[in-house]
Amino acid sequence: MTVLTVSLNLALDVTYRVDRLRPGAMHRVAEPAVRAGGKGVNVSRVLRSLGEETLVLGFAGGENGRVAQDDLAGAGVPAELTRVSGQTRRTIALVDDSGEATLLNEPGPRITDTEWQRFLQTYRAHSAEAAVIVLSGSLPPGLPTDTYATLISEARGTPVILDADGPALLAGVKARPALIKPNAEELRAATGLSDVHSGAQHLLGMGAQAVAVSQGPDGMAVHTASGTWHAKPPEPVTGNPTGAGDAAVAAFARGLGSVPWPDLLLDAVALSAAAVAAPQAGDVDHALYARLL
Amino acid sequence: MTVLTVSLNLALDVTYRVDRLRPGAMHRVAEPAVRAGGKGVNVSRVLRSLGEETLVLGFAGGENGRVAQDDLAGAGVPAELTRVSGQTRRTIALVDDSGEATLLNEPGPRITDTEWQRFLQTYRAHSAEAAVIVLSGSLPPGLPTDTYATLISEARGTPVILDADGPALLAGVKARPALIKPNAEELRAATGLSDVHSGAQHLLGMGAQAVAVSQGPDGMAVHTASGTWHAKPPEPVTGNPTGAGDAAVAAFARGLGSVPWPDLLLDAVALSAAAVAAPQAGDVDHALYARLL
Repeated sequence: MTVLTVSLNLALDVTYRVDRLRPGAMHRVAEPAVRAGGKGVNVSRVLRSLGEETLVLGFAGGENGRVAQDDLAGAGVPAELTRVSGQTRRTIALVDDSGEATLLNEPGPRITDTEWQRFLQTYRAHSAEAAVIVLSGSLPPGLPTDTYATLISEARGTPVILDADGPALLAGVKARPALIKPNAEELRAATGLSDVHSGAQHLLGMGAQAVAVSQGPDGMAVHTASGTWHAKPPEPVTGNPTGAGDAAVAAFARGLGSVPWPDLLLDAVALSAAAVAAPQAGDVDHALYARLL
Repeated sequence: MTVLTVSLNLALDVTYRVDRLRPGAMHRVAEPAVRAGGKGVNVSRVLRSLGEETLVLGFAGGENGRVAQDDLAGAGVPAELTRVSGQTRRTIALVDDSGEATLLNEPGPRITDTEWQRFLQTYRAHSAEAAVIVLSGSLPPGLPTDTYATLISEARGTPVILDADGPALLAGVKARPALIKPNAEELRAATGLSDVHSGAQHLLGMGAQAVAVSQGPDGMAVHTASGTWHAKPPEPVTGNPTGAGDAAVAAFARGLGSVPWPDLLLDAVALSAAAVAAPQAGDVDHALYARLL
């Protein structure tokens, strides 16, 4: 059974290494590392590395879109991307010797109504056969705030995990996703409630069937109508936290509906920590994952 | 009569606006401004804006090369670029609200021997008809340090302005260019002499027929066997100093051989200051230029 991931604002991730970023200075840099990026793409990368079936849906335009598509093909991550007239955005990371990343995120191409209708056809064709659908990340220009609500309705009962923030999260919650996964800061921003438990209860009340709140090194809590569970890694893990949330989503997507919440949460926390230990978003330190489990 | 400019490491200049560059943070940025860049390209842009005939030679590869070529065509700057199998480099500028630019310069594609031979054919065909040849900027990977010396010899008597630094400058000087234009820092680095006058005399002794040393707000000095002249703008000019040296080279290229050094120097200083006042490298504030003259 396939996990369908949707990256409406799929990007070409471009990473430059600098010894140290000095504002105002000129830096000689090597050719950047380039690969397809976006939260949904990261989820599918993790699932593929675990041997799971997955398919990436999203938009691709221009040369950046072609390079992203080629990268996914080369990595063995199946994707069916709707071509758009705009140019796929680049997200630029300047990573220094200490591992600190300075990010520049472009907005992405404006999606026309015709392009959106073409995407919806592809989405309907694949969502019918999917075990779980993952909707992740920001919305590109041109799509309304309730886009994720539309996609949850169109899923016609297939469980949906929604990993979004702000207005797109709040609008999506009303369409009753199986799980949402804000981090503590996103939860506070969306609900205006500073207490994590109150915020989670608020989103359950709005329609979410479960709320997983990631809290960085403090682990993760799952809130549902039948109970709340909390788990954290047995040891602190250092590394690159980008993509850790996507690894947790991959774990939830793999077991949703078949694995009980406490076991699912332990798996998500272990896989998330193992993603922190891997240098690139979408990668996992599989030895660490096995050890943490 | 045409000024032939050579940009062996022609780039696609990509400019992102950020309110303030914060190392370690995520910045949402708009689509970047993109245009063909490189010191020779800037010289030709300035010459075109003055109504002069010019032709850009260089290499172009991949999508970046195509975009650079389209940009030159759109700007009305004639160019004949030798296609290469590598990808034209990007130079990334992160410009904040104060105008401060943080630069990331990629090395550029490796030029193969076959590509170099094809370039040489184009160069020979056009250098025969050129009034002046301008050789500017860094050398791409794959070309030897004495590349500019080769191009000066191949010019067969057409006067050459060389705007390079380090080993490429020192090797080029031996082929007797009509003019070199290091800034004070490049002069010190190349000669190891901290005194500007001594450094310039050293390079005259090595073969340069004239040495123009730019000193930022302190103006510029021209050193020749027959004398030394110095000029500075009558008023301080604030703005973007990138491209100011290229504007000076454009002025020298336009008048070399027909205008006496003192007048040529005044023109170069005025045009250079007018380039500082224009926001983008390759542009000139023509009203300020007229006033300064």
